[in-house]
Amino acid sequence: LDELELIEEIRRRFGTEASDRIKKGIGDDAAVLLPSRGLLLLTTDIMVENLHFDLSFMSPRDIGFKLVARNVSDIFAMAGEPEFMLLDLCLPQQLLLSHQKRTVHEFVEALFDGIEEGLKRYSVILIGGDLSTSPGKIYLSATLTGSSERPVFRSGARPGDLIYVTGTLGDSSCGLEILKRTITSRGGEVTVVKDTEIPSEIKKPLLKKALSPEPEPVHKKINKINAMIDISDGLAIDLWRLCRESAVGAVIYQDKIPISKEVREASRLLGLDPLSFALSGGEDYELLFTTENRVKEEGITEIGFIKEGDNLSIIDGSGIERPLKPEGYIHRWGQK
Amino acid sequence: LDELELIEEIRRRFGTEASDRIKKGIGDDAAVLLPSRGLLLLTTDIMVENLHFDLSFMSPRDIGFKLVARNVSDIFAMAGEPEFMLLDLCLPQQLLLSHQKRTVHEFVEALFDGIEEGLKRYSVILIGGDLSTSPGKIYLSATLTGSSERPVFRSGARPGDLIYVTGTLGDSSCGLEILKRTITSRGGEVTVVKDTEIPSEIKKPLLKKALSPEPEPVHKKINKINAMIDISDGLAIDLWRLCRESAVGAVIYQDKIPISKEVREASRLLGLDPLSFALSGGEDYELLFTTENRVKEEGITEIGFIKEGDNLSIIDGSGIERPLKPEGYIHRWGQK
Repeated sequence: LDELELIEEIRRRFGTEASDRIKKGIGDDAAVLLPSRGLLLLTTDIMVENLHFDLSFMSPRDIGFKLVARNVSDIFAMAGEPEFMLLDLCLPQQLLLSHQKRTVHEFVEALFDGIEEGLKRYSVILIGGDLSTSPGKIYLSATLTGSSERPVFRSGARPGDLIYVTGTLGDSSCGLEILKRTITSRGGEVTVVKDTEIPSEIKKPLLKKALSPEPEPVHKKINKINAMIDISDGLAIDLWRLCRESAVGAVIYQDKIPISKEVREASRLLGLDPLSFALSGGEDYELLFTTENRVKEEGITEIGFIKEGDNLSIIDGSGIERPLKPEGYIHRWGQK
Repeated sequence: LDELELIEEIRRRFGTEASDRIKKGIGDDAAVLLPSRGLLLLTTDIMVENLHFDLSFMSPRDIGFKLVARNVSDIFAMAGEPEFMLLDLCLPQQLLLSHQKRTVHEFVEALFDGIEEGLKRYSVILIGGDLSTSPGKIYLSATLTGSSERPVFRSGARPGDLIYVTGTLGDSSCGLEILKRTITSRGGEVTVVKDTEIPSEIKKPLLKKALSPEPEPVHKKINKINAMIDISDGLAIDLWRLCRESAVGAVIYQDKIPISKEVREASRLLGLDPLSFALSGGEDYELLFTTENRVKEEGITEIGFIKEGDNLSIIDGSGIERPLKPEGYIHRWGQK
């Protein structure tokens, strides 16, 4: 498999999706588009092997789908519609996937299946990218464009705003914790091998959220969102980010944080704290937003309010208020 | 050094460049731009340690500058003006740069110096990106937007068009060959240590082209360019790409290919073929274009013509025609 063949493969698979907006898609020095009607949104997201995914429990299909979904989540967080994608792909010359018995070509096919599924799911068209071998792990990155007539920033929260989150929080990181305690058998089925035996009906939705999250937008059903961010690194740190950009503080109520019965039950069996998954687990790809209006929508939960200042705090069931620390996933580099 | 500090650093350094087009730059889920007046161009380019650059002879400054320059070259190849950039940065937690005695922070500072220089050189503004640690090598990628009223594609070449290239070819790969035969001393000065001793006045411009190429656009001075591509992987393969997209063939004259006196002299001293550097060396970041009109511009050389069919050939000094094979840098993957 060489670069030219791989580009051919990509053009065959992704080059057929037509749009009047595309003047030149895959296969030139740059893609050429008619500009969007609204404002142009641009985001990029990296996925690195052994850091953002692990081949021992994540299939190439899931990796491909998640790469699209992560970027789409960023566009939704701006109240935008995702439109076009560029793909960067760095693949080692020899994949060490012995337990999956896959050639590089088979791996790429399955990865593309997932990317294709993600693109279809969110009506995104692949318009270009770059390919390279990798001297180490698998590195993926995508740049996604979107458009929005009225984008929502992190910086628009005002004292008095109510704070809402979509879905439930912690499912993904709880699912990941289960995956870390498992191995993948040859066929791809997950088998618990360590100190945990979690019933399938509990495990399944958690693994689904960890492996193949499907972000949903809220801007079409909610009026006047003042500020928004996607929860990718954890509620605590992402709320902190939103407050920082808005120069405000916030109070949230522990009991109001939406935690699924699956996370509660799995946490009990694992001997872990469900609140910790919800606050700092990350990878939720749910949306956190603030608005002056009370929202009554299924799947959207009010968890607190914005206030003046720069303090973030959480009030527990007995009414005790403590500081909410910006904990969550943060990359760190050592000093040489 | 953690992610939050690094983002702060990036905002301090790059966040101040104002443009009326930017509604939201670094620091949200996505950047928000007013659409371009012309067509929107989008390109992305990966740079991986030990594949696209080598820390033993390339400074972080040069790596940063080249990342910008490579992407700018793609926009110029579409007859566009570069505008905004997204940066993806994957850095190992511990850099193994003992001979450079650099901490991660120092490395990043120098890398940013080069990126900043590149952005200024080409009037590009950084509007966002993504950061990650890396479990292996350094991975960089940039996505660059541009605009063009009349973009030029690879596919527009017609039989009878004349073929032109800018600058001289092979300088970069010849410079790289010299670098491969050298080591970098602690202070950063290059010392030849192997079987070659090339005079400084020959070596210097070649190393400059290899380490810090500065692409120049041609679309403002040439009327009616029919097709264009940047020469990044080598004249032979990039001409082949252009012909393939245009469904045409081409003839080029060996003696007309612009080869600098530095490449000729260094090749003689190295015992290598200067033509091979020019045809398949790659990394030139010069432009190859076709037009019906004869061009008389300094630094632009006519090397042949487009014909019907799909054959590419080269005619040598004695008038002998032989097939021109699409040789140049191609990534290849093994079958596990």
